[in-house]
Parts: sequence; structure tokens; C-alpha cells
Amino acid sequence: MATTSSATAAALPGAFGPDDVDSLAVETIRFLAADMVEEANSGHPGLPMGAAPMAWTLFSRHLRHDPSRSDWADRDRFVLSAGHGSALLYALLHLFGYDLPMDELRRFRQLGSATPGHPEFGHTDGVETTTGPLGQGLAMAVGLALAERMQAARYPDLTDHHTWALVGDGCLMEGVSHEAASLAGHLGLGRLVVLADDNRITIDGDVELASSDDQLARFAAYGWHVSRVDDGTDLVTIDAALTAAKADPRPSLVAVRTQIGHGAPGVEGTAKAHGSPLGAEVLAAARRRIGWPEERFHVPQVIRDRCAALAAQGAAHRAAWEQRWKEFAAASPGEAGEWQRRHARRLPETPVSIPLGAARATRVASREVLRCASEVLPELVGGSADLAGSTGTDIGATALTRDDFSGTRINFGIREFGMAAVLNGISVHGGFRVYGSTFLVFSDYLRPALRLSALMRQPVVYLLTHDSVAVGEDGPTHQPVEHIESLRLIPNVAVLRPADDAETLEAWRIALERTDGPTVLILSRQSLPPLPATGLRDLAATGARTVHDPENPDVELLATGSEVHLALAAADLLAADGVRARVRSVLWRERLPDVGRRDPGALPSVSIEAGVSQGWRGLADTSVGVETFGVSGPGEQVLTYLGLTPEAVADRIRRS
Amino acid sequence: MATTSSATAAALPGAFGPDDVDSLAVETIRFLAADMVEEANSGHPGLPMGAAPMAWTLFSRHLRHDPSRSDWADRDRFVLSAGHGSALLYALLHLFGYDLPMDELRRFRQLGSATPGHPEFGHTDGVETTTGPLGQGLAMAVGLALAERMQAARYPDLTDHHTWALVGDGCLMEGVSHEAASLAGHLGLGRLVVLADDNRITIDGDVELASSDDQLARFAAYGWHVSRVDDGTDLVTIDAALTAAKADPRPSLVAVRTQIGHGAPGVEGTAKAHGSPLGAEVLAAARRRIGWPEERFHVPQVIRDRCAALAAQGAAHRAAWEQRWKEFAAASPGEAGEWQRRHARRLPETPVSIPLGAARATRVASREVLRCASEVLPELVGGSADLAGSTGTDIGATALTRDDFSGTRINFGIREFGMAAVLNGISVHGGFRVYGSTFLVFSDYLRPALRLSALMRQPVVYLLTHDSVAVGEDGPTHQPVEHIESLRLIPNVAVLRPADDAETLEAWRIALERTDGPTVLILSRQSLPPLPATGLRDLAATGARTVHDPENPDVELLATGSEVHLALAAADLLAADGVRARVRSVLWRERLPDVGRRDPGALPSVSIEAGVSQGWRGLADTSVGVETFGVSGPGEQVLTYLGLTPEAVADRIRRS
Repeated sequence: MATTSSATAAALPGAFGPDDVDSLAVETIRFLAADMVEEANSGHPGLPMGAAPMAWTLFSRHLRHDPSRSDWADRDRFVLSAGHGSALLYALLHLFGYDLPMDELRRFRQLGSATPGHPEFGHTDGVETTTGPLGQGLAMAVGLALAERMQAARYPDLTDHHTWALVGDGCLMEGVSHEAASLAGHLGLGRLVVLADDNRITIDGDVELASSDDQLARFAAYGWHVSRVDDGTDLVTIDAALTAAKADPRPSLVAVRTQIGHGAPGVEGTAKAHGSPLGAEVLAAARRRIGWPEERFHVPQVIRDRCAALAAQGAAHRAAWEQRWKEFAAASPGEAGEWQRRHARRLPETPVSIPLGAARATRVASREVLRCASEVLPELVGGSADLAGSTGTDIGATALTRDDFSGTRINFGIREFGMAAVLNGISVHGGFRVYGSTFLVFSDYLRPALRLSALMRQPVVYLLTHDSVAVGEDGPTHQPVEHIESLRLIPNVAVLRPADDAETLEAWRIALERTDGPTVLILSRQSLPPLPATGLRDLAATGARTVHDPENPDVELLATGSEVHLALAAADLLAADGVRARVRSVLWRERLPDVGRRDPGALPSVSIEAGVSQGWRGLADTSVGVETFGVSGPGEQVLTYLGLTPEAVADRIRRS
Repeated sequence: MATTSSATAAALPGAFGPDDVDSLAVETIRFLAADMVEEANSGHPGLPMGAAPMAWTLFSRHLRHDPSRSDWADRDRFVLSAGHGSALLYALLHLFGYDLPMDELRRFRQLGSATPGHPEFGHTDGVETTTGPLGQGLAMAVGLALAERMQAARYPDLTDHHTWALVGDGCLMEGVSHEAASLAGHLGLGRLVVLADDNRITIDGDVELASSDDQLARFAAYGWHVSRVDDGTDLVTIDAALTAAKADPRPSLVAVRTQIGHGAPGVEGTAKAHGSPLGAEVLAAARRRIGWPEERFHVPQVIRDRCAALAAQGAAHRAAWEQRWKEFAAASPGEAGEWQRRHARRLPETPVSIPLGAARATRVASREVLRCASEVLPELVGGSADLAGSTGTDIGATALTRDDFSGTRINFGIREFGMAAVLNGISVHGGFRVYGSTFLVFSDYLRPALRLSALMRQPVVYLLTHDSVAVGEDGPTHQPVEHIESLRLIPNVAVLRPADDAETLEAWRIALERTDGPTVLILSRQSLPPLPATGLRDLAATGARTVHDPENPDVELLATGSEVHLALAAADLLAADGVRARVRSVLWRERLPDVGRRDPGALPSVSIEAGVSQGWRGLADTSVGVETFGVSGPGEQVLTYLGLTPEAVADRIRRS
């Protein structure tokens, strides 16, 4: 793959002639990455040094992007799923002219730098997703590729990009790789190309210590196009493989055999190259081996020139697209406005609303809200991990298929983690709002992806139903106990548990208005009667509202969801004894103004929530909760057994 | 597969002759299951009716068990991974004479019955694992099969059993199926045979809605032996496939094409048969179709006889084994005692101990304890999800391999969830104590299995290191913030965060002495100096000890792990101002006697823990914590940035 160059040979390190720009670029990336790690005295040089040739091939021959406009909607996406190789990504972003100056490379892994230890979405120009927790980058890439197809179905003239991911052995061992790759194969996401850095090394040693998978056969079983490049330094073959992958209508896995830490004498090809600086001696030896200049962070001018030329090609692509966009806007101003609204995540004027006042499960009320929201917000897409009917996402919307991506409903299959990670990918793609549903108890399965929703501040809506031991007969494996509280612990997550249909609507409104983090709606399986319609609009600001307000109350009951009705019934019993109990419905506990600083002169208070009460300590003097796993039996009997009846609660309050 | 029977034809339903005992048994199971669901008006008839033929083939031809002694150590294990099909399992256990009388089948899914909605380990005689959360049964079966190999390496004359699992489409879609199946293939667990109930139906409809996997090709890529049975009612072919699977040296997947709800007119073969009672009309029609008696819970005497005869064969196998055991005990009384000790989960006389007083990370101290524990307890096995060196499980123990299972170290690969589920399987097998390690932040990946450790009350030891934002450069994806608190929420889990090497030893002792639930050790990456050696033996009972005890204290600081040292440094600064701060190291917060009921006259208190402080509310008047995600940078700088320095903490205390 000889290339011509305007640079003079004199400007190049000894071993490289003017025709060796590609080799020079690869070495530039390798040494930038190694120097970053060395300077930080922390980080992972192994992957960047081994994967530099394939990454350069991708960035120089295939990736369509405009580094001057990292927000170009129709850019190709590149996800470094093996996020520990961040130095590789930063080197590339710097060379191609993203807003990542050399000073930031020198500040790799330093507090406040644009080059954190793992790539962080929203923090560094050109970084498409936060990665590091293994496997999730691959799954988010599936989401990005799916978003592209969905957008192409809606805006065919404006959408024509690819999604590329670079994964390591670890990504392929993680279970989420199965869920995501299976879904990608099922949906035939042909614009997804995954490069596997097949270095056969993990932290503990050779991959063979723990895995004998035939990864190509495995992905072929998912319906992927697969290929292998035996020499990961052979740019011509890599280029051909990527070209073939792009041309194939199936998603593609290109396994590229590499050597971890390639070029670092004594450590290359071993686990030692993975996660520690090479050390001055090895790094110097690496330089000597190919005659690389001694100065750190060296970038030959010819490489700067080549990258600038490539970036200019990308800018031209973007300009041509902008032109098409202007023509589209001129021809269809309404649709163009809609495009802009969706990409800006602005809500439409039409409010989301449903008729209120019916006794029904909040999961059923949520279904009605979702049905309306899907009409009001055509960009709202999502689905369920095989529980559409139970969780209220069976709203009659058309499911998308491999042949038609215009639908708004996604059949995620029994893949909670994959669902959530794919939703993250769709969300960071832009142009869509997303939701996903499962039983609350299975939020454990998707928790690692919910954490990334929160870290990336993506407004993913999680519909988690069957929200307590009232689930009944399915028993403790299906009865959430610790889950509501555990979700409240994750920063940036809004955890909302509505108590009737009006609060469910309000919770959905909060979720849709939020653009800086995920929202979890905790929804009941069982029917709940409507509460008085007071104070609903305060919920977003104050988190709670009063639903029963006797004069001169003796005690305040703080309850959530279905337990608000339990609190009201207990208050009735107490009233017969002359005890006046105020009842508050707490939709969004973390919004309570008194969280963590209760007035010592406040009313005695009792929290009532069918889950572990740990998080209510300090908010209430007494807590009625469920501190053990549940038990199988009819829901009402289970509640009785666990002390969640009006009588038992009233007794607890009398004794407190 | 004609069989002779002593029953008279007159005792049989119309359509069955005396040679049709197999068909009769299959129908008995089908109707028992359908009747259980009907009686409960809740449950899943579809899987039992479709899978009854394969289950009967397994139980009547292959499964080696003694229903009168469900604790026989060398029994075959059967795991119903598709736990929603519990009625199938209960029907079989009843018919074969386990301690599950018909009355319990009639009380299916009722409060306090032995037949809960999903199978529960420790609750029902003959149930080997708790299942229901999909995919985990398969992974636990891998653990059971691994335990068998490990036990065979240690007691070859006493170990010769198989592990069987029945999985559904959902189990195979879940990511953990990938992790577990890949590990099983890698380790060549040939005594594992998995029957896949290939009914092509999920809750949302056809499997084809969400998956196009070629499951046989996929499992072949893991190194499994795979086969297909096209007619799931053909006992002869199923039997042949199971025989071939047993004979093959690889783990086996036998995909059996079935019809969900087979025999139920109008709903068979559809998602409607999955999770609801058939209804009186359909059930009556099903009976009419084959002439089955109208009475519910009908069991033909010939089936009772056949099952009793088969159980007697199992009892004979067990008796022969007991005889071998007695010979073994006579020849090797010491080894026999050791076998008994291990199976009773008694600790040996020799205490686990290490030299104390060194400044080191608690993960390093834990490594030393683990090294000693591995010598004292030869039954202690475990490993890491590819972080052996970082988490301190690289104790020089021999790793087991597919050719030699005598090692005690397991290379789990980058499979946290699979690791934890496999550990659960090894633990419920008996004869071993288990541990597994990863970074604390990745406990999210294994949380669903940790929940099952807790629900099954298995003493799995989780070593979770790199326990705070002090991790530093790796940044927020690798810095736990919410995790310690979220683990404390799960019932039956002991969450211990030691502050020096002596507390690490104590934490390990607590973990090893516990036999009724998992223990999580939260361990530091960074070095911690030794604390005064006072009150260590109180920790197990009271959860905390005083490590700095000035006279007439003004304030009490409650800290955990590395933050105990921060508290001590803050106390020093406060002392210079004349403020006397008592410092308590809280190893096991949930053991604090005052959890949830603080004395109003108590000292003002401040909690200090580098994580979200939600759970400390009510225990402390003020909390120093980390309420946001972390940030990438050198550890010390990150701590400073987040206010976790002695100066900042002293300031917070002065202001509180």
C-alpha cells in the first residue's frame, strides 16, 4: 500500500522512506500511545501498539468523519469497545484534528484532562461512547448501527453511515457480547463492522487459559459475515477485509491477529504489555529498534499533513451532506424542523396526556401514556426484553424488522443487559428517544448498562414493572426487595414510583423532560385506585405530594407506589383510634427537600415501602419495609405474611 | 420402546395399553403439571407439557438418583434452568418418591407449600438449585459438572455422576449462557448434558421475533458436542441422543424440538400456553383428546409402580456406593473423615492465620490469608475473572485444566457473571468452599448471581477489590461509588470492608465461619498501615471496633476500610483544635447494634466512607461520602478533588 508524500525523506525517522507514510503513521500512533502511558506512568500500551495498524487502516481508508465537526449527524461512528486502549483513540483523534491538542495527550489520565483513563462520552471531542466495562462498547455499537438503520428508514436521503467497533478478547468473552451480537445478526445490521483485536492475551495470561471459543464460527452462528486477517501489521489485507466487510449485507466480524505491545522488545506478545507503562528502558529500546526519534510525542510532519488531507476529505463529505440537508430543508421545511427538534431533544408542543381517574395498575397506565407519547414523539423507540405484554409496551406499534426499520418497537428478546446497552447506543447516536422494559427484579441483569446511561447522562427510560413482593406466586426469584433502593444509589438516575395513573403520567413527563440522565419508572403489577388529584405538578420539583391531610396531624406517613394506598388504609384505621395521620405520596424520594437534614421538630414519621428500608433511615423515624427475600404465594397472602396490611401497619405505627 | 407392566389394562385410561407405560407416564406428568397450574390458577403449563417426554426419558433411563436420599453425594444432578416450568420438576419429584406428597402438588404456588412458583434450593426435597432468573440454571449446571470433575480428581473411587440441565430459549438468549457454555467447552466438561427445550416460543411470541441464532453451531463453536431431536415426543430418539451425549467426551447440547403446551387443544404451540392456566375448558378438551380421567391429579398405579421400581434401582446404586464408601473409610479413615468434614462444611482445627502488622493493601493482605486458607482448607477452590494478580488470587495454587482437575484455581476468564453462577453451582454441589474475585465496580456484572448465592444461602466468598475512587487513573468506569451500599441491600449477604491486615484476616474468618450466606470482602487497592490491634475479636459480633478512644470524646467518627485512616488523620487535626474525636472502624455495618435505632443522647457522629452515603443516614448525623461519579486522575488527587483529605474531613466535622 505505497503512498506518495510531499514530505522530504529528511523529515522522516531513519527507517522510513517517503513512500512509507502508512508505516510511519502506524509507528506515530504506537509511540504516541506508549509515550502517553509513560508520561502518565499509568495506562495500557499493549492494545494501542498491537492495534495501531488496523486502526490506522480504518481511519485512513474507511472512516467517514469530519474532525472539525464531531457532531455531524451522518458521520461514521467508531467505538473503542476495549476502552482501556484509550491512548490509541486519543492519538487518532489528535492526529486527525479533533479538539484534542497535544497538551491533552501529555496530560493523559491527569485530573481534569480531556484524556481520562477510559474514553468518556461528552468529555472528549470525538469520543462516541464511554467504554471500559468490557463488552458494552460492542453492544452500544449495535445500538448505533441500529439507530443508523432506523434513521435511514425515516430520512433516507440524509443517512448513510457505518458503525465501526474495535473489540478485545475480553469484550468477546463477556455475556453481553452474545446478546448484542445475536440481536445484530437477527436484525441484519450490515453497516456494523467489528474489528477484533485478536492478540490472544488477557490480563491473566494467554486467552487459552480460559477460552477455546472459535469466535468466527460463533459469530457465523449469529448470522454474521466473518473473516480473519492473519497478520495484523499487513495494512493491505486489513484494508481488503474491511472493504469486504462493508460490502457484505450482514454485520461483519474481522478478526485481526495482532501482537500485544508490538514493537516493545521483551514485553511484546505477553500479558506484561497490557496494563503498565513499558518503562524507560523498553521504550528506548523500542525506539532504537526502528530508529524512532528520542523526543516524546513525536509526530512527523508528513503524518500531520496526511491526516489533515484525510480530514479535509471528510470535511468535503460533510459539506456535501450539509448541501443535501439544505435542499431537504428547502423542499420539506416541516420535516427539517422535525429533524432539528429530534436532534436537539426538544419535546413537541403537544402534551403527552391520557384520561385519568381509572383504577388500574401503574404498568397499565404507563402503557396508555406510552401509547400517547409514541404518537406525540415519533422519535420514541424502544421495546421489551420479551415481556411486552406484562410490562405494558405492547402498544400496537409496529415492530422493526431486518427488512423494514421504520417501526418503533424493538423485540429485544430475553436479553436485558443487551437491551439496555443497545438503548444507550441508540441514545448517543442522536435523533431518538428510547425506552426499555423488564421486571424490576431483572434490573440486576441490566445494571451495568444503566450505570453507563447514568455516566453518559443519556435520557433512557427504564420501565420496570412487577415492583414488589405483591408479584406473589412467582416467588422470591421474581419479587424485587432490594431493587428500588439499589437503583436510587446510582448517581444521575431518577427513580420514580407512581401511586396511581395521574402520577404515572407525571412520572412519564418528568422522564421525557429530563435530558441529562436516565429515568427509572417503578410500576405495579396490581391495580391501584386513583388518588386525589392534588399537588401533582409539585412532584417534579419536590418529589412528593400530600394525598391525605387531616388537621393537626399526629404522624406523617411517607409511602411510595402501591404502598400509598396501604398508608391511606392504615390512616383510616388510626383515625378510628383518634390518631391523625397525614399521608404523603413520595414519587421521587431523592427530590425530597429534607433528604439528609430532617428538622428535629418535625412530625414523627413512618416510611412505608415494600422493599428494604435502609435508605429511609434518617428520613423517617420508623420504617415499614421488607428486609428479607419474599415468598411464593398469592400476592395478598404474601403481603399479609410480610406485615404489609393496613392492620399490621397501623399496629406498627401505634407502637412506634 | 415397549415395556412390560404388571398393571392390568383395566387400570389404565382408555387409549393406553399395558405396553404404553412410557406414553402413560408422559401424560401423567403433563396432566399433573397442568392440574397444578389450574388448581393454583397461576403458573406455566406450556413447558411441562412440551418437555414431559424428554424429562421422562431422562428420569426413567438416565438419571442416577435415589429419591429416598436426596443428599447422596454421588447422585446425578438435574437442573431445571427454565425454572418457570417448576410444575414439571415437582411432578417428577413426586412420582419418583421424593419427600413431596401429592398434597404439596395440590398446594402449588401457595404460601408455605413445598411447591413454590420457581424451584427453590433448600426448600423442596430434590431441588438442586434455585432457578427462574434465566440462564443461571445452565451456568450453575456448569458449576455442578465442574465440581464433579474436581471431586473425581480428589476421590476417584467415590465420584461418578452426571449433571443434566433442561434449558429454554430464554436461557440460551441470556448472556450468561455464553459465559458458562464457553467455560464448559474450554474445560471439556463431558459429564454435562444440556437438553434444550426447543419450542420456538417466547412470551412475546415466536423465537424468530428476536433471534436467528443457529444454537447448535454456536455451541459447537464452544467445543460442545451437539445434536438435534426433531420430534420431541419420540422417546426412542431422545434416549439415543442422551446416550450419545453421555458417551461423548465433550459437554453436550441436545436440542429437542417440542411443542409448547403439547396436548392442549387450541393453545398448544403458541405463546398463550406459556404462562397462564389452560382454563377448565381447554384442560377438559385435552383430557378428552386422549381419554384421560377427569379427576385432577390422577396417577395411574402402573406409573407409581414403574417409578418405584426405577427409584429402587437408584437406591441400589446408592447402596453400592455406600458400600464403596465404607470400604474407603475402612482403608483410609483419615481421608474419610476429611470427606465428611468437607461435606459438612466444618472448618478444620488449624486456624487460618497470617503474620500481622505490615502496611499493605487489604487486597494484598487478603492474598496472604487466601494462601494460608488454601493450605488449611484443601476444599477451598476459586479464582478470578481475569484479574488474579490485581485482586490477590494469584497465590501460586495450581490451576485446574481440562486434563487435570486436581488444581484449586480456576481461570474464569473475563466472565464475572458466569464466574459467580458457576461458584453457586460448585457450592450447592457440596464438598467445596468457593471464592471468586473481580474489581468492586464490576460486581454489577455478577449481581444477579450474587442474589442467588444469597437466596440459596451459599457461603460463596466474593473478593471485590479496588474499592473506591482511590483507584484513580482508570476513572469513573472503574471507580465504585454506589457499590458498597448496593451490596449491603441484598438480604443474607455479609458485606465486610476491612481497614488493615488484621481486619482482613478477621473478615476472612467471618467469611469462612459463615455457612448460611455469601460474604463480600471489599478490599483496597492502595496500601493501608496497621491499626491498633484492639477489639478485633468483637468485630464478628458487633460489626465495629474503636481504634482511637480519647477521653470525653466530643464526636464519634464511623469509618470503613481505607477511610478509617482518613478518620484518624482528621481526628489528629481536630485534636489540635481541642476537639476530641473517637474513631470506630466499621467492618460489618449491618451488625452495628444501633442500626436503625440510635440513642438520641448519643455522641454526635460522622460517617466517612468513599461512596454514596445514603445508607448512613440515621446512623450518623453527618456523612462524608462521594455522591457523584468519580473522575480520572492520580488517586491522591482524585481524593483531594472529592474532599476526602484529612483537612477537608476535619473542616466538615468542625462545621457539622
